[in-house]
Amino acid sequence: MKNYSLLCDFYELTMSNGYLKNGFSEKTTYFDMFFRKVPDEGGFAVFAGLEQLCDYIKNLKFSDEDIDFLRKKGIFEEEFLKYLADFKFTGDIYAVPEGTPIFPYEPVITVKAKAIEAQLIETFLLLCVNHQSLIATKANRIVRAAQGRTVLEFGSRRAQGADGAVIGARAAYIGGCHGTACTLTDKLYDVPAGGTMAHSWVQMFDSEYEAFKTYCEIYPESTTLLVDTYDTLGSGIPNAIKVFKEILLPKGITNFAVRLDSGDISYLSKKARKMLDDAGLSCCKITASNSLDEYIIRDLMLQGAKIDTFGVGERLITAKSNPVFGGVYKLVAVEKDGEIIPKIKISENIGKITNPHFKKVYRLFDNNTGKAIADQICIHDETIDDTKPLKIFDQYNVWKSKTITDFTAKELLKPIFINGEQVYECPPINEVREYCLNQIETLWDEVKRFENPHSYYVDLSEKLWELKNKMLEEHKK
Amino acid sequence: MKNYSLLCDFYELTMSNGYLKNGFSEKTTYFDMFFRKVPDEGGFAVFAGLEQLCDYIKNLKFSDEDIDFLRKKGIFEEEFLKYLADFKFTGDIYAVPEGTPIFPYEPVITVKAKAIEAQLIETFLLLCVNHQSLIATKANRIVRAAQGRTVLEFGSRRAQGADGAVIGARAAYIGGCHGTACTLTDKLYDVPAGGTMAHSWVQMFDSEYEAFKTYCEIYPESTTLLVDTYDTLGSGIPNAIKVFKEILLPKGITNFAVRLDSGDISYLSKKARKMLDDAGLSCCKITASNSLDEYIIRDLMLQGAKIDTFGVGERLITAKSNPVFGGVYKLVAVEKDGEIIPKIKISENIGKITNPHFKKVYRLFDNNTGKAIADQICIHDETIDDTKPLKIFDQYNVWKSKTITDFTAKELLKPIFINGEQVYECPPINEVREYCLNQIETLWDEVKRFENPHSYYVDLSEKLWELKNKMLEEHKK
Repeated sequence: MKNYSLLCDFYELTMSNGYLKNGFSEKTTYFDMFFRKVPDEGGFAVFAGLEQLCDYIKNLKFSDEDIDFLRKKGIFEEEFLKYLADFKFTGDIYAVPEGTPIFPYEPVITVKAKAIEAQLIETFLLLCVNHQSLIATKANRIVRAAQGRTVLEFGSRRAQGADGAVIGARAAYIGGCHGTACTLTDKLYDVPAGGTMAHSWVQMFDSEYEAFKTYCEIYPESTTLLVDTYDTLGSGIPNAIKVFKEILLPKGITNFAVRLDSGDISYLSKKARKMLDDAGLSCCKITASNSLDEYIIRDLMLQGAKIDTFGVGERLITAKSNPVFGGVYKLVAVEKDGEIIPKIKISENIGKITNPHFKKVYRLFDNNTGKAIADQICIHDETIDDTKPLKIFDQYNVWKSKTITDFTAKELLKPIFINGEQVYECPPINEVREYCLNQIETLWDEVKRFENPHSYYVDLSEKLWELKNKMLEEHKK
Repeated sequence: MKNYSLLCDFYELTMSNGYLKNGFSEKTTYFDMFFRKVPDEGGFAVFAGLEQLCDYIKNLKFSDEDIDFLRKKGIFEEEFLKYLADFKFTGDIYAVPEGTPIFPYEPVITVKAKAIEAQLIETFLLLCVNHQSLIATKANRIVRAAQGRTVLEFGSRRAQGADGAVIGARAAYIGGCHGTACTLTDKLYDVPAGGTMAHSWVQMFDSEYEAFKTYCEIYPESTTLLVDTYDTLGSGIPNAIKVFKEILLPKGITNFAVRLDSGDISYLSKKARKMLDDAGLSCCKITASNSLDEYIIRDLMLQGAKIDTFGVGERLITAKSNPVFGGVYKLVAVEKDGEIIPKIKISENIGKITNPHFKKVYRLFDNNTGKAIADQICIHDETIDDTKPLKIFDQYNVWKSKTITDFTAKELLKPIFINGEQVYECPPINEVREYCLNQIETLWDEVKRFENPHSYYVDLSEKLWELKNKMLEEHKK
């Protein structure tokens, strides 16, 4: 992995230099990462990017070249540059596992570290998790729209940079895609890559028929013929039928497909299906790929389009309809003489007021249905006893409350690094994907709706609610 | 630079394996990269990403590990794997210089190479240029909206992956931004990085006043105080005024600023301006940063907001309003027995029909105004003689024509690689930025309008028009 130590906002360095100079370098601080709004007005997001965050933390060091570069800026103390030369992350990181459905305002990562250490990792931590959570969340929407049909990630060429493509395809797989076209993602992250032909293959030959025939001869076991180079229904499908019958059926092979990449996919897929069926090729699958996303796929399904596999490109890999995941990283406490002092960021915008203190998060599951009822954010030393009834309430409308019984409380944040050592083993990617899909099963359908989904409850414990309100009152004075 | 040889769509490998097996490996092919639509319905785009494309081409090789990975897929011939092990790009690449304003449907890159070489670079070429052109184009819109005020790129934490942040900031600079917060972009690409403090700095101290005072003492020469942690007008501005007067003015320093990061920026900037002026601090600059883009900046300017510097984050680094640059890479010719045979991709969608053949592009400048009149796409062996009148015409409405005189014709595509060797020296980034801003000066204001801009003329030469129409006619038969 590349050394991304300088992939930080410059102010993290100026502040850190100031912390050191001001005697704050040993001060223990607590930062939360959380987000405020689910992209696309959805009901939940999917957390992803933790494995790459772990790699970054483990590789975090400032090279001589980095130090020289900073020295030339002329504003950093030599003491600080020496500090950086010896830098190692020695703090604790807690995070929810990759693939976990997450909700606004709950901490999904908590960092407990010395001020400078916590500050210097801010940008990379955010960008890594924001990016992958964005794409995993989008991918899951698309996969849900496809109702069990195969969804493949095809967007590398339109991604925002190489990592956008390679790591984006990883996140798309976590969110439920079945594979990618990106070869490097297969090599680096074990996401199955596949693909067959582009228009250039067809154009390279003197005729479409010859192009198809040659392809089937070379790859009899995994043929998908691209049928829209010249005329989908006029030549593409007829030529495909011809070569399937001439080359593949005689070998007993029935595992082949055609791909539609332009025109009206609903209309063309139905026509193509009929032509294939009439030719006795009901085994032939149909793949579609042309500016697809969850909305178009939902409509195609409603219209009875005959599509077995969706190849989804630019609108997935850039999360086109909402290309920003707005995770933030906020100071929530500092230690003073061994005591944890909660901190709060005030704002006239209610949504920008932070939840103070070092915290933990419980997800409460109904024992009868297995479904998630609510999340509760508590102060770090609180414990939910799920053998007893629990009253939960809305933090802004406290009269909106209910008492739940017969539930199981599961802590969401796991220790990932303790004293700078990674204590968490990142699971293989296929397990992450399976965990993700299973966890999403625990959400009510109402939370999964695209339009106006039910707001899942994320509540504060009574103790945390009281602390927050006390701090707001104090500030008013 | 990382080895990105496997950052390709898997079908490029299956096709290449097929080309080799089918005796096409020595076949010379011509591919064009072009795009179809300017993002955000704008009048032009800014070409960027060439330097990173050159790095990629020069570093292109398949390692033993890559080959082993591919062998395990079980579908590639040993002959092909050996071919990859010895792979080197040996073709020619022509491209417009970085920073050039570009228009739909004209080739901005042309690759002349053996079939496999041209095919394997498709994905990286596209993603590299698509990404940087997207961000450079967006940045230029924002810079134009700011009418000469400083624009800084602040978006790393919301970028789509590490390259999205680091290389995106490079592209933003080419498009006209004055600097970035991303430290690594400064180190790697010489884009000036800067920044001062986050809310965490203010929260780390017992009081806002103390936080400001300490900062001014450490960085007297480059202080921007973030004034919205608690209450912008109630405490932030008054505390800033106090420390500027106590610490900086006595030292004769007048080069300082405050930063607004929440609330209504128009209202707050006017109030803050007045408070600063009333305190005798008319030298104090005001920076604003809070979900800005070209539309909000335009409105802030119209409302007379008192802002000297705009810090633009997520909406720039992800090109939020239109996060995809749709560049494509299409086969336009192949050689057969030493002759160049033009190729065309037909589509029912007129906009998806390609311009066939190996081509060149001229930009025609009016000698009196220095402004660009039109671009003309010609066949590679044509030359425009700008000492004679030239008739240009619309390819779809040929009656829309005009004859231009007293103009200078400049070829846009420069040789970048010839026979696999880089023959083009990429200019330093500040020269690219300057070239970009100068070239945009040659466009009429009508082309630069945000809403409904004038469509700049991109025409075909008569010879190319005739060839294209002949090929379409032939296909109809």
